[in-house]
Amino acid sequence: MFKKVLIANRGEIAVRIIRACRELGVGTVAVYSDIDKEALHAQIADEAVCIGGYMAKDSYLNITNILSACVLTGADAIHPGFGFLSENAKFAKMCKECNIKFIGPDYESIELMGNKARAREIMQSANVPIVPGFEGKIKDLNHAREIAEEIGYPVIIKASAGGGGKGIRIAYNLEEFEKGYNTAKSEAMACFGDDTLYIEKFIENPKHIEFQILGDNYGNVIHLGERECSLQRKNQKVLEEAPSSIIDNELRNKIGEIAKNAAKAVNYKNAGTIEFLVDKDKNFYFMEMNTRIQVEHPITEMVTGIDIVKEQLKIASGKELSYKQEDIKIKGHAIECRINAEEPNFDFRPCPGKITELYLPGGFGVRLDSAIYCGYKIPHCYDSMIGKLIAYGNNRNEAIMRMKRALSEFGVGGVKTNIEFQYWLLETEEFLNGDYHTGFLGNKLKEKMEKI
Amino acid sequence: MFKKVLIANRGEIAVRIIRACRELGVGTVAVYSDIDKEALHAQIADEAVCIGGYMAKDSYLNITNILSACVLTGADAIHPGFGFLSENAKFAKMCKECNIKFIGPDYESIELMGNKARAREIMQSANVPIVPGFEGKIKDLNHAREIAEEIGYPVIIKASAGGGGKGIRIAYNLEEFEKGYNTAKSEAMACFGDDTLYIEKFIENPKHIEFQILGDNYGNVIHLGERECSLQRKNQKVLEEAPSSIIDNELRNKIGEIAKNAAKAVNYKNAGTIEFLVDKDKNFYFMEMNTRIQVEHPITEMVTGIDIVKEQLKIASGKELSYKQEDIKIKGHAIECRINAEEPNFDFRPCPGKITELYLPGGFGVRLDSAIYCGYKIPHCYDSMIGKLIAYGNNRNEAIMRMKRALSEFGVGGVKTNIEFQYWLLETEEFLNGDYHTGFLGNKLKEKMEKI
Repeated sequence: MFKKVLIANRGEIAVRIIRACRELGVGTVAVYSDIDKEALHAQIADEAVCIGGYMAKDSYLNITNILSACVLTGADAIHPGFGFLSENAKFAKMCKECNIKFIGPDYESIELMGNKARAREIMQSANVPIVPGFEGKIKDLNHAREIAEEIGYPVIIKASAGGGGKGIRIAYNLEEFEKGYNTAKSEAMACFGDDTLYIEKFIENPKHIEFQILGDNYGNVIHLGERECSLQRKNQKVLEEAPSSIIDNELRNKIGEIAKNAAKAVNYKNAGTIEFLVDKDKNFYFMEMNTRIQVEHPITEMVTGIDIVKEQLKIASGKELSYKQEDIKIKGHAIECRINAEEPNFDFRPCPGKITELYLPGGFGVRLDSAIYCGYKIPHCYDSMIGKLIAYGNNRNEAIMRMKRALSEFGVGGVKTNIEFQYWLLETEEFLNGDYHTGFLGNKLKEKMEKI
Repeated sequence: MFKKVLIANRGEIAVRIIRACRELGVGTVAVYSDIDKEALHAQIADEAVCIGGYMAKDSYLNITNILSACVLTGADAIHPGFGFLSENAKFAKMCKECNIKFIGPDYESIELMGNKARAREIMQSANVPIVPGFEGKIKDLNHAREIAEEIGYPVIIKASAGGGGKGIRIAYNLEEFEKGYNTAKSEAMACFGDDTLYIEKFIENPKHIEFQILGDNYGNVIHLGERECSLQRKNQKVLEEAPSSIIDNELRNKIGEIAKNAAKAVNYKNAGTIEFLVDKDKNFYFMEMNTRIQVEHPITEMVTGIDIVKEQLKIASGKELSYKQEDIKIKGHAIECRINAEEPNFDFRPCPGKITELYLPGGFGVRLDSAIYCGYKIPHCYDSMIGKLIAYGNNRNEAIMRMKRALSEFGVGGVKTNIEFQYWLLETEEFLNGDYHTGFLGNKLKEKMEKI
């Protein structure tokens, strides 16, 4: 096992990783930007190093400073968390060159999966179902139009290097297509420095269902079942649950095996997630692979009993997988609500500021992954997510009731949060029936606005 | 199910019960003494009623005021928690007379088990092994001396009406016996208004192992395995774990069946605990039955997945047990550390006061049952326990490592706590080996003091 791990991230995921390290007896180094000196991750790690100014490019995206902090403190591995440098193949490669273990897959796997068009090709050759779409290089708008017409509307236009909902447009007809193509192209260039686009069939009202994968260095790959992540606002997940109400054991095994093949096709090591779109007839299509830990990993931990971050550390240190596929049993039901400092009534605008009062929920079946404390000043410059509230129950109904009571006792003073909004969401008929798709929340909110 | 439950308690157990009610959709009424207006239980319940002054006899022990609050708010049941009125047969009887459901066993069972001598008799006739001792009425000191000599030293002298370590003396010889007998007698009178004593063989260096029982109104009784509660200071539990390292499945089934017989012997309904002393040869002896929820119930919940407080509510409302004995599977390992506001370096004297800073532990496998928040003023007049930190792991080692990391991130400013002390305890060789008995902690602390 490693002696000391540097966590190249901040906030709750940095705290999450520090916890896993500590439980394995591994030393921890936090890095922080100048505005994050009082942040919990910087306070609870064994050591903490300032790596630059508050803008991400100067600190959490500053490869040189992070590698220097690693050398300075003698850390022998880096955990990148999610976001920031976690899917940066160049960073993973530089770690390797510096003889620092990158806790994640090989940089080659990141590279392969990071390119959406290339990923499609690989999946196709591994017999993983993909959404009908165009494989090659799009020459220009005229060519793009031809492709769209061949696939048939509606189509979706995506940035090859994309992620987080940026550079995505949907078109139901030619007019929308031309407009969408141009804006996606310029957004892609602005966000990722690469305006390569790809076009595919738009699956209407699908569910977003993803499979958690673990692979070791010896060719062993297992899946830990699915997460239902269809509750999204502007392509950002809001609430996730496991298992999904539309997946039975047979379908789980079927998609799970395909997800494993997808991982094997890129010689995948460590934790990763294969995202699928599932249509109303339960046809499923590979969407993308995330080559890192996901925000919503805790719900899988709750229903399988497996500490995924500890497994990441074990795998990266050269250990074989601790579990075989037959050891994996899905038990009970887990829900995660992302708690954001934002104003749901003002288009969810972020609401940074100082937490002046705080009541945290607890008790049986409730897990809180956060990095907040009373007196903490939420900075303006990072993601508005301040915590993840997870409720576990013996069945879905118990998990829902538990989540509701946990939300009801969660009190944050000084900043606005989406706690009440999450409570409202849990009481919608569609959620209670498990009958919702990726478009549901957007439509529901539009409907709500129109009523006002 | 009940419409509304009044919780006749305070602090973390009141919060625990409110949580269970809320998850079942049951309304809640908190009661509070004048000093507890800002207490969390009074704040998070649906309704809250002040029932008197800060002294327990004026509020939390004030039967008239509590029953009035019940009538006033229209609550149809009372949950007594632990301590206070929870084992008061008169209170349970008065609830019945007022047509309010007491969430616990019938008052007759409380009465039977509350009298230690009577309980011994009943257990003996139900073939539950008891510690050799004297069954009848002790006439005077001379008679007591004869009894002690017949049993053979060492013996233990206990108050019949006792509990919480009060009115207990151990004697290894005649001189100690005479002194102990007189002080136990006066302590029993002072604490319980009843100086009836009983004498039995003192089992040296035993383990305190208790079995959780659930019984319904239809004669069904199950056990949920054992809790190892040998880590005690002055007969007060400090840290508990489940399962016990000395109990294998065979012995668990054996003692479990006997515990069920003990419960059946008093027609026991609802949750209860049968406490046993287990000697080094794994002989076990009935010690007492607690006819209420225990402080340490969460560790059983963690290893069985059963919400014991919800079961209490269901049983009291007339439902059959949700589980059969064969459904009960002990999985993983759980540890509970009682977190007290006290100064371990000054003989654990209580340390009430205002919490000025607070970092609460969280994350995978960590449960916190508490009623504290930043800014809360811990009153001087109640128990010093401010929370219970519970760590769950797939095995004992994982649970220990998880508890250590949770303690390491638990920060309380403004008052002293035993957090560091608990960390120290987790690192003692005896604890790590699972090789400790009820006398271990006292001896260890004495040793530590002598070193200074």
